[in-house]
Amino acid sequence: MSSTAGQVIRCKAAVAWEAGKPLVMEEVDVAPPQAMEVRVKILFTSLCHTDVYFWEAKGQTPLFPRIFGHEAGGIVESVGEGVTDLEPGDHVLPVFTGECKECRHCKSEESNMCDLLRINTDRGVMLNDGKSRFSIRGQPIYHFVGTSTFSEYTVVHVGCLAKINPAAPLDKVCVLSCGISTGLGATLNVAKPKKGSTVAIFGLGAVGLAAAEGARISGASRIIGVDLNANRFDEAKKFGVTEFVNPKDHDKPVHEVIAEMTNGGVDRSVECTGSVSAMISAFECVHDGWGVAVLVGVPNKDDAFKTHPMNILNERTLKGTFFGNYKPRSDIPSVVEKYMNKELELEKFITHEVPFAEINKAFEYMLSGAGLRCIIKMDA
Amino acid sequence: MSSTAGQVIRCKAAVAWEAGKPLVMEEVDVAPPQAMEVRVKILFTSLCHTDVYFWEAKGQTPLFPRIFGHEAGGIVESVGEGVTDLEPGDHVLPVFTGECKECRHCKSEESNMCDLLRINTDRGVMLNDGKSRFSIRGQPIYHFVGTSTFSEYTVVHVGCLAKINPAAPLDKVCVLSCGISTGLGATLNVAKPKKGSTVAIFGLGAVGLAAAEGARISGASRIIGVDLNANRFDEAKKFGVTEFVNPKDHDKPVHEVIAEMTNGGVDRSVECTGSVSAMISAFECVHDGWGVAVLVGVPNKDDAFKTHPMNILNERTLKGTFFGNYKPRSDIPSVVEKYMNKELELEKFITHEVPFAEINKAFEYMLSGAGLRCIIKMDA
Ligand SMILES: NC(=O)c1ccc[n+]([C@@H]2O[C@H](COP(=O)([O-])OP(=O)(O)OC[C@H]3O[C@@H](n4cnc5c(N)ncnc54)[C@H](O)[C@@H]3O)[C@@H](O)[C@H]2O)c1
Ligand SMILES: NC(=O)c1ccc[n+]([C@@H]2O[C@H](COP(=O)([O-])OP(=O)(O)OC[C@H]3O[C@@H](n4cnc5c(N)ncnc54)[C@H](O)[C@@H]3O)[C@@H](O)[C@H]2O)c1
Ligand SMILES: [Zn+2]
Ligand SMILES: [Zn+2]
Ligand SMILES: [Zn+2]
Ligand SMILES: [Zn+2]
Repeated sequence: MSSTAGQVIRCKAAVAWEAGKPLVMEEVDVAPPQAMEVRVKILFTSLCHTDVYFWEAKGQTPLFPRIFGHEAGGIVESVGEGVTDLEPGDHVLPVFTGECKECRHCKSEESNMCDLLRINTDRGVMLNDGKSRFSIRGQPIYHFVGTSTFSEYTVVHVGCLAKINPAAPLDKVCVLSCGISTGLGATLNVAKPKKGSTVAIFGLGAVGLAAAEGARISGASRIIGVDLNANRFDEAKKFGVTEFVNPKDHDKPVHEVIAEMTNGGVDRSVECTGSVSAMISAFECVHDGWGVAVLVGVPNKDDAFKTHPMNILNERTLKGTFFGNYKPRSDIPSVVEKYMNKELELEKFITHEVPFAEINKAFEYMLSGAGLRCIIKMDA
Repeated sequence: MSSTAGQVIRCKAAVAWEAGKPLVMEEVDVAPPQAMEVRVKILFTSLCHTDVYFWEAKGQTPLFPRIFGHEAGGIVESVGEGVTDLEPGDHVLPVFTGECKECRHCKSEESNMCDLLRINTDRGVMLNDGKSRFSIRGQPIYHFVGTSTFSEYTVVHVGCLAKINPAAPLDKVCVLSCGISTGLGATLNVAKPKKGSTVAIFGLGAVGLAAAEGARISGASRIIGVDLNANRFDEAKKFGVTEFVNPKDHDKPVHEVIAEMTNGGVDRSVECTGSVSAMISAFECVHDGWGVAVLVGVPNKDDAFKTHPMNILNERTLKGTFFGNYKPRSDIPSVVEKYMNKELELEKFITHEVPFAEINKAFEYMLSGAGLRCIIKMDA
């Protein structure tokens, strides 16, 4: 039992007081975990587009002040009532979506969209009492997707914590907390390319490159990267992408370009852009008879996916996935093992590192499109 | 070797001279089979909507005079050069789509859309020489989808013939040649409901009821039939349909009605209407996380399948199928066995019977929406 268990912990956190304004380093009070909650000491966190998106709060309900952050690695400090799966000292990855192990989704082999702990970007409080565990001089600070990892300590529902191998370096495997697992799982768990098949990846950001890494691991013979930004192509070579298509370079629709390159279409495609036109192209570029297209990108509110029904009837399959269909507690520990036994490479995703005090630099890197993942070291 | 082998056979055929006009019984000359072709004596044929659709020729390229018919059972009379799989006397079901066993589709486990013998409704001739095997006083009569079973004898590519158990009654199993296998396979091969699951069937024509039969065979606990025509509901009870929804009876969209009936959506849906709005509802009514929707109905040229991409992203699967994903030569013989061992019921699909001379009555039954399948007996 740590000496802090049951006590409020005062520590540093990067607080977003207002939409789009730089985060401010503050001393926050972190209340002890309640029933089914766990307090975690965060060692490393990284920045994902979703943090930036909700921090910019263009379109969504703004919820401020708030502590963002959802890709991270840490160590359990103390556990609340009823928590039996974790104990102080355990190494964990917090995940923005959870696994209660009780609901129909958790009991289904196919779904990871837990009824209780499914991502909820509008909720800024904990489920147990509808309140926040963070405060500054008594003023509550909102949580973000149940993780809020831009804090030295955070409180997370036990269902949103994957217990991982303590030998795994947290400064590397923390990126498995969101984007990298999302892309990887989209390919390995949903698209499931066979050895020797051709795979198209739409969008070569961190998620798309993780999808490409999945295709490489699956033994795909051709991996075709599609992006509107030609700067992405050089980096993508490291991820096994063998050919590139920039839709801007062609007069005809990109699905036709790909059909010509592949004698009728690719075996699998994975869309990681968030653009609805890319989603449609990703579907239409798979081969009839057996092609499978998987959508990962988060669309805009008013988007419509539109295609001629004949494209479906000709035995194509369209699927969507959320967090790569991984169940956080059941499956993420084995993804960490894939890294440990060198099947999966993570170093190439990590392009920057900053100390916690300079977290706003990580936002700048992302906003300028530089690199893939910036690791934020909490104790530096 | 039959005495007619290598000879032109003169026999009766029901010829469509003009779009939408009653068929005319004629004496036709049927040339011997060429390389990879087989001449078949048809004993029973039935009428399917596709015959009526191309006979009406509203919209498609009209190709007349033509011999329609594609659901049938017969016996091999003689075989052309290179045919080793079949010999005179074999019992066969002609199928509108074929299996060459050589192309990428035939070699794929997943596809049945043979590159060589895939359905082609615009071609009225045989592949080998681009000519017809039918003529009347020297005037060629066009084929239909490579089968033209409204004739006492027809010539079919060997790849479009399923060799079946000779003990199977051809007047029953002939319906497996098209619509019934299509609906059955859509459920058994593509939707694959687990025992105890809930299945929605859109459209309760012969194809939809065959899909329901597949759900019954799979052990579905609830089979929800959706049709705009309430007259279909009574008959559908025989096919295991447990509940009915007529979209006309509700103010809200049918996918919402079904979601309310099923605590969030059905596990599987199969669309057998050809209406694009039903296709969209069939997709949107499956449960997030694990739901699978299968489209079977043939859409119109200008239709658009349209849905919010979030419906896909929430881990729903959308698939299309053609002839129930059955490979005609490899798989249809085992569907016949399902009937032989009483797993599959066919009698309930057969609501009418007419002698060949009265084939136009079969058209009338179908046009008036009476019954499901009318068997046409060639030798009566
Ligand atoms: N489903 C999930 O669980 C989940 C989890 C994390 C992220 N995401 C989503 O995945 C997507 C990708 O995330 P990321 O962090 O890699 O983003 P990113 O912005 O780094 O990369 C997206 C890439 O797509 C490219 N692109 C945009 N429109 C395109 C088009 N029409 N055609 C081709 N390329 C196009 C961009 O140039 C960019 O390189 C986002 O939509 C994100 O919200 C989903
Ligand atoms: N994919 C294939 O290989 C294949 C093979 C054969 C037939 N088909 C297609 O399958 C479909 C069904 O064939 P069938 O012979 O059973 O047709 P059918 O006309 O007998 O039955 C269709 C049923 O759908 C109902 N319906 C129409 N619009 C509807 C809507 N919006 N909502 C609910 N119900 C609606 C009709 O009332 C009718 O009862 C057709 O489109 C046909 O072309 C496909
Ligand atoms: Zn759950
Ligand atoms: Zn993320
Ligand atoms: Zn073939
Ligand atoms: Zn048919």
